[in-house]
Amino acid sequence: MYPKIGLLGGGQLGQMLCEAANPLGIQVVILDAPASPAKQVNAKVPHIDGSFVDPEKIRELARQVDILTVEIEHVDTKVLEEIAEQGVKMEDGKMKRVQVHPSWKTIRVIQDKFVQKDHLARAGVKTAASKAVESNAAALEAVGKEFGYPFMLKSRKDAYDGRGNFPVESKDDIKEAFEVLKGRGLYAEKWAAFRLELAVMVVKTQDEPSEGGQGTVAFPAVETVHEDSICKLVYLPPRNVSEKVQKKAQELARKAVGSFWGKGVFGVELFVMDKGDELVVNEIAPRPHNSGHYTIEACPTMSQFKAQLLSITDLMPSFSNSTIPSMFPSAIMLNILGGKGKDSHNELVKRTFTIPTGALHMYGKEAKPKRKIGHVTVVGNSLSQTETLIAPFIGLADGMRAEREGISAPKVITQSATSGLLSSRPLVAVTMGSDSDLPVLKPGLALLKTLEIPFHVTITSAHRTPQRMTDFANSAVSQGFKVIIAAAGGAAHLPGMIAASTPLPVIGVPVKGSTLDGMDSLLSIVQMPRGVPVATVAINNSINAALLAARILGTSDERIRLRLEKYAKDMGDEVVGKADKLENVGFEGY
Amino acid sequence: MYPKIGLLGGGQLGQMLCEAANPLGIQVVILDAPASPAKQVNAKVPHIDGSFVDPEKIRELARQVDILTVEIEHVDTKVLEEIAEQGVKMEDGKMKRVQVHPSWKTIRVIQDKFVQKDHLARAGVKTAASKAVESNAAALEAVGKEFGYPFMLKSRKDAYDGRGNFPVESKDDIKEAFEVLKGRGLYAEKWAAFRLELAVMVVKTQDEPSEGGQGTVAFPAVETVHEDSICKLVYLPPRNVSEKVQKKAQELARKAVGSFWGKGVFGVELFVMDKGDELVVNEIAPRPHNSGHYTIEACPTMSQFKAQLLSITDLMPSFSNSTIPSMFPSAIMLNILGGKGKDSHNELVKRTFTIPTGALHMYGKEAKPKRKIGHVTVVGNSLSQTETLIAPFIGLADGMRAEREGISAPKVITQSATSGLLSSRPLVAVTMGSDSDLPVLKPGLALLKTLEIPFHVTITSAHRTPQRMTDFANSAVSQGFKVIIAAAGGAAHLPGMIAASTPLPVIGVPVKGSTLDGMDSLLSIVQMPRGVPVATVAINNSINAALLAARILGTSDERIRLRLEKYAKDMGDEVVGKADKLENVGFEGY
Repeated sequence: MYPKIGLLGGGQLGQMLCEAANPLGIQVVILDAPASPAKQVNAKVPHIDGSFVDPEKIRELARQVDILTVEIEHVDTKVLEEIAEQGVKMEDGKMKRVQVHPSWKTIRVIQDKFVQKDHLARAGVKTAASKAVESNAAALEAVGKEFGYPFMLKSRKDAYDGRGNFPVESKDDIKEAFEVLKGRGLYAEKWAAFRLELAVMVVKTQDEPSEGGQGTVAFPAVETVHEDSICKLVYLPPRNVSEKVQKKAQELARKAVGSFWGKGVFGVELFVMDKGDELVVNEIAPRPHNSGHYTIEACPTMSQFKAQLLSITDLMPSFSNSTIPSMFPSAIMLNILGGKGKDSHNELVKRTFTIPTGALHMYGKEAKPKRKIGHVTVVGNSLSQTETLIAPFIGLADGMRAEREGISAPKVITQSATSGLLSSRPLVAVTMGSDSDLPVLKPGLALLKTLEIPFHVTITSAHRTPQRMTDFANSAVSQGFKVIIAAAGGAAHLPGMIAASTPLPVIGVPVKGSTLDGMDSLLSIVQMPRGVPVATVAINNSINAALLAARILGTSDERIRLRLEKYAKDMGDEVVGKADKLENVGFEGY
Repeated sequence: MYPKIGLLGGGQLGQMLCEAANPLGIQVVILDAPASPAKQVNAKVPHIDGSFVDPEKIRELARQVDILTVEIEHVDTKVLEEIAEQGVKMEDGKMKRVQVHPSWKTIRVIQDKFVQKDHLARAGVKTAASKAVESNAAALEAVGKEFGYPFMLKSRKDAYDGRGNFPVESKDDIKEAFEVLKGRGLYAEKWAAFRLELAVMVVKTQDEPSEGGQGTVAFPAVETVHEDSICKLVYLPPRNVSEKVQKKAQELARKAVGSFWGKGVFGVELFVMDKGDELVVNEIAPRPHNSGHYTIEACPTMSQFKAQLLSITDLMPSFSNSTIPSMFPSAIMLNILGGKGKDSHNELVKRTFTIPTGALHMYGKEAKPKRKIGHVTVVGNSLSQTETLIAPFIGLADGMRAEREGISAPKVITQSATSGLLSSRPLVAVTMGSDSDLPVLKPGLALLKTLEIPFHVTITSAHRTPQRMTDFANSAVSQGFKVIIAAAGGAAHLPGMIAASTPLPVIGVPVKGSTLDGMDSLLSIVQMPRGVPVATVAINNSINAALLAARILGTSDERIRLRLEKYAKDMGDEVVGKADKLENVGFEGY
């Protein structure tokens, strides 16, 4: 009932494609070396042993199938063009029609990174400024003058995982750059001052190119972290990226993919620039992509691999807003690279089984140093939860890297280590109408510290800095805050006004003023109209505000909940101690 | 790094076991006919062609592996006993130790359903009353007198999918019963007047038997619906079954499985009796089970198949409360049985691709009438949502059945086709001091429903039921609640007293009484001492209590946060709409 699929390449991407195809009953014939990863999980049909760049083998594959697709873009597009345009000659001499997805035209454009960037620019998709260069020093010096140093010298073809790229820091690097990249067609790229990298998997469901991304569907935007020029981590959602920017990334990725020919999934890598969070497309892969592996668990009924199969067979369902949602609020994927020895990864692999929400994928490849041999994905209800879960695995991977590279201490994890430390990211925002409220808040702040809950303190007056207050409330979610504590006195509007501009829980602390004993503050804070709740605590009681914030965080963080249970026990013990003393000493001597 | 697994049987259960083993890098050697479903997805190792009841083939398998396991219980336990107790003789004449999971003892007991029931009774697990019978009319008439009619006559061994069972409606049926079941060892079972069937998958992680289910972990209880004596549908959560009964089913299933030997997953089928929802174990399968297929999507990081692999290799993580939670509030599985023609199922199969949250599993078996050839699972945020999604597929399956059976109209779908009430696990506990507070809470409860937040409502009076209130607060965390809403009036002690006995955030709703305009309630709730916070909202404002609970849950659940943002937008739009009207109509005409 399905068309038969022919797959060029049988690595881990092909393997996971077959793992998605098997339960659907879709038959995939693989062209690659014997016992390649994809062939290890697919004995439904006989496969073809050989190279996916051998035209005669590709024709042999085409004779057996209805649709050809790829798991790698470094293939022979001439023979794909021949098959797509003229068909393939069968044994009886007749020509047979075979579809090629994505189109050979798309693969050819993408294979040459300079042509790819030129294509995107024509389609109105912003990329880093780049230009083709001759392989001589004078040409590069001219580029240095135009782009400034550093700039990137890149091989136009066959580059991946950082191979084929050379950062030219000054005129003196030019000679070495030519040596490293000798014999390759080259282009130069202006240095992109980006603060982090995003990636978006896009599914193309129609044959013809479109403008504005029609006929495409996007998975969520994720943050990718590279180390040694290899993808190391993928974060869903991206850290410290507003939802607006995430949405813009999806739109830009859909526009970029829409400009190509044929169907299938595409991996789009983007930079978030230092300045104003501007988005720039870095490059595109016309196939499933490492940055989309998290979809196997995060979108358990529509992974990137199932989407590849359904799009090329015209079976893709429609999704509202042209986006495929993650079914978990957060997922993090960590690549497992081969270590120094062939068993160096065993400890990390075994540890994955201790995480009930963790999933391991080993590719059935021999472990060689730095080779991608598997990955692990954890899913959870929040980024902070998944970050906590993945942390020990990052530590083990860093240890493997240190051993492999012969360095003593693990390097800093992230390329753009601005956001790096999860422990320092504030979860609670504490604000007050005036610095005169600070003494009231101090006991609560001290308690947050005791409970090891990171917080951020500021002043935002509803009446004196209304815009600042609104900006603060509007950006609270994207800043990563989970709870807001607001203290105010008198006609205390601050907690309610903040609650009106954020979906986060807001805790209000009524501050006692010089008149009315704090009743004015209390009623101003607690008597909010229907629709905008403020969690009000007792007058001047910042301790209870801090404890309430901790209880809220404790609903999704077991560690905080356990600390609260200890706090309650200590508090009880203290009372019992006083009771003992009172009973022993008597009320007069106490 | 892993022990090598030998699998007796290569049907769809073995296939899905291999689909779980492949990404982990666990090697499974299969003994079954060539091209059996499991072999179609596993080319990592050479397999053995032959019968899984052939002792010599089982020994051949044992020589190649470290652990033997089964995907079917109809195997030769004598040879398993021999291998487990003495090892297997290698070519060099040495004996090699091989583990067998679950133990041959367990398989032997379970194979004979009468012995199985006897074993369970000895372990203190209630089953339907049953007794062994001789194959003569007099013996059966005596049973009829003892149990009454109808009763079930069952074959002790080799019965599945309804084969081997005969309902004896009266004395006149006895002759036919012997004809149908001739040549089999038989037993009689008292008619079980049950209102529906549940099933619980249980993972056994220790070798020795235990009392009370120690060393076991349970997946959720699901409802199973049979048609023509074959499992048709599996519902998570079960329809119209209280959480208390679901939990009791998990506990009973764990106790039952704990009484056996060896490790692995077990499928436990239970009846919920007509009277008082009493639970009775029907039978147990010592292997992955049709009623656990939903776990592939509902527990995407810990399916029943992964659990089977991890338990027999001692790699299972620990789960709190000894239960493996579903990661979606609801899932429904529908079996796909072969229709009249070999393509009768194609329409149903193609339709599955229209459901973004649907997952298809085809087993690679030739379609024969009534044969299980695949299944489809849909997941969702509520039972009503998944019921809506699965409905058209049930219709198509019913059409296939009608064509296959040559009947004109589809039969009633479900055994207990009552309403599909949303009954997922409650996250919010709502309690009040008196039922007179209910009218105040109603708008908030309605809003929780609108926001699709499952909740539980009860009454706990601080002054009239102090112990009940304390028990409620103490057990709130273990019940799985995340937030508590407590409403009370007058000297309103309830919210504060609950907050004193739980680390969960407690939201207090002051209820206005007949005097003091609610100020008494407000101050009793908000003015808590340091150490025990109550998040107080405005007097009588249960809407804000519900919204605050939603904001708290939204800190770790993106979906709820997005619903809140939509709520805020709608509320804003409504005000803008009124403003427009006021400006157009003028204040007098408004």
